[in-house]
Amino acid sequence: MEDKEISQAVISRLPRYFRYLGELKDEGIERVSSQELSDIMRVTASQIRQDLNNFGGFGQQGYGYNVEYLYGEIGEILGLHKEHNLIIVGAGHLGQALVNYMNFERRGFIFRGIFDINEKIQGTQIRGITVRPMQEMEQFVRENDIDIAVLTIPKTSAVAVAEQLVSYGIKGFWNFAHIDLHVPEKIQVENVHLSDSLMKLSYNLASHAE
Amino acid sequence: MEDKEISQAVISRLPRYFRYLGELKDEGIERVSSQELSDIMRVTASQIRQDLNNFGGFGQQGYGYNVEYLYGEIGEILGLHKEHNLIIVGAGHLGQALVNYMNFERRGFIFRGIFDINEKIQGTQIRGITVRPMQEMEQFVRENDIDIAVLTIPKTSAVAVAEQLVSYGIKGFWNFAHIDLHVPEKIQVENVHLSDSLMKLSYNLASHAE
Repeated sequence: MEDKEISQAVISRLPRYFRYLGELKDEGIERVSSQELSDIMRVTASQIRQDLNNFGGFGQQGYGYNVEYLYGEIGEILGLHKEHNLIIVGAGHLGQALVNYMNFERRGFIFRGIFDINEKIQGTQIRGITVRPMQEMEQFVRENDIDIAVLTIPKTSAVAVAEQLVSYGIKGFWNFAHIDLHVPEKIQVENVHLSDSLMKLSYNLASHAE
Repeated sequence: MEDKEISQAVISRLPRYFRYLGELKDEGIERVSSQELSDIMRVTASQIRQDLNNFGGFGQQGYGYNVEYLYGEIGEILGLHKEHNLIIVGAGHLGQALVNYMNFERRGFIFRGIFDINEKIQGTQIRGITVRPMQEMEQFVRENDIDIAVLTIPKTSAVAVAEQLVSYGIKGFWNFAHIDLHVPEKIQVENVHLSDSLMKLSYNLASHAE
């Protein structure tokens, strides 16, 4: 991994490069120029070169980028060569939707356990994974080398549950609860605040209306 | 609405201000200084002042911000005083989760219709809303003043469906399909690319591991 800190803006764009390169690869395309990539991704070629230069370039003057190589390298930068063990806390509609979404597993994010406070659904299964009571969470996290917790619980309980999970050894949170978690700096948090996203859409609709 | 273009970075932060102010309001707090807001939101007070100055300020030297007033103003900037009529295309797990999430309605985003190509679920109801066949979409959008379409369909069909919907008069997309839509510039798109978000978490885990 690079020593210098890469900006979160660049990192936010990496999955998009990865996605487009994956599509080119699937189409059997072997190489692509930054100009061609620029046309299909609708960002400037200079932005692409600049972003990729953060990681050492990968391109060759007059040749462009080798699609499969670049795809592999970006995948490695994104840490996708390593498997992650996930638990999901909150087996409501959204939790179920995430567990049922197979693409995450293809990328190495494996749902190992599901936890919920609702006794009525404890013991039931979602895609073969048993819903367990919260009391079993600590032991499960420690015994199954869980590094990521997905929080699909109400905001009223999310902060406290996150604190518990940090003490059990969780390294990262994928947080869908509509609240900011307060966890130590070394713990990584990626928020998906759906309401915020919808409000942003609302703003853009309002400000572009005549 | 302001004449000058506000940066998307500022706009992305507005829902978070709105959320924190809503919590202060619910706690009965009447005014807050930018320093207090800074402490609870964990951004600098100068960032807060700068962001809010984009919309004319709202603060008074030595008094701070009136919580209820600022909450109302930001809500209005976000366009939340206006109701939006939504349809959702794709009644799979994620679509069902979104329809079942009541908070969106409280903010004025009303799900009016649900569409799916799967004949087996057409005619069934999700939270009282009937799942309809795609063939009824055009008429439904036109007759029910639908302005936002939520896409929770596979990426293979999302681009074509979005094009259709634009021709029916849709003004904005909340896009969960893992692909970039190609729509005219006046159409607003807010993407929720869950895989991208998870890859960003993976990157941050990998780059912060020893």
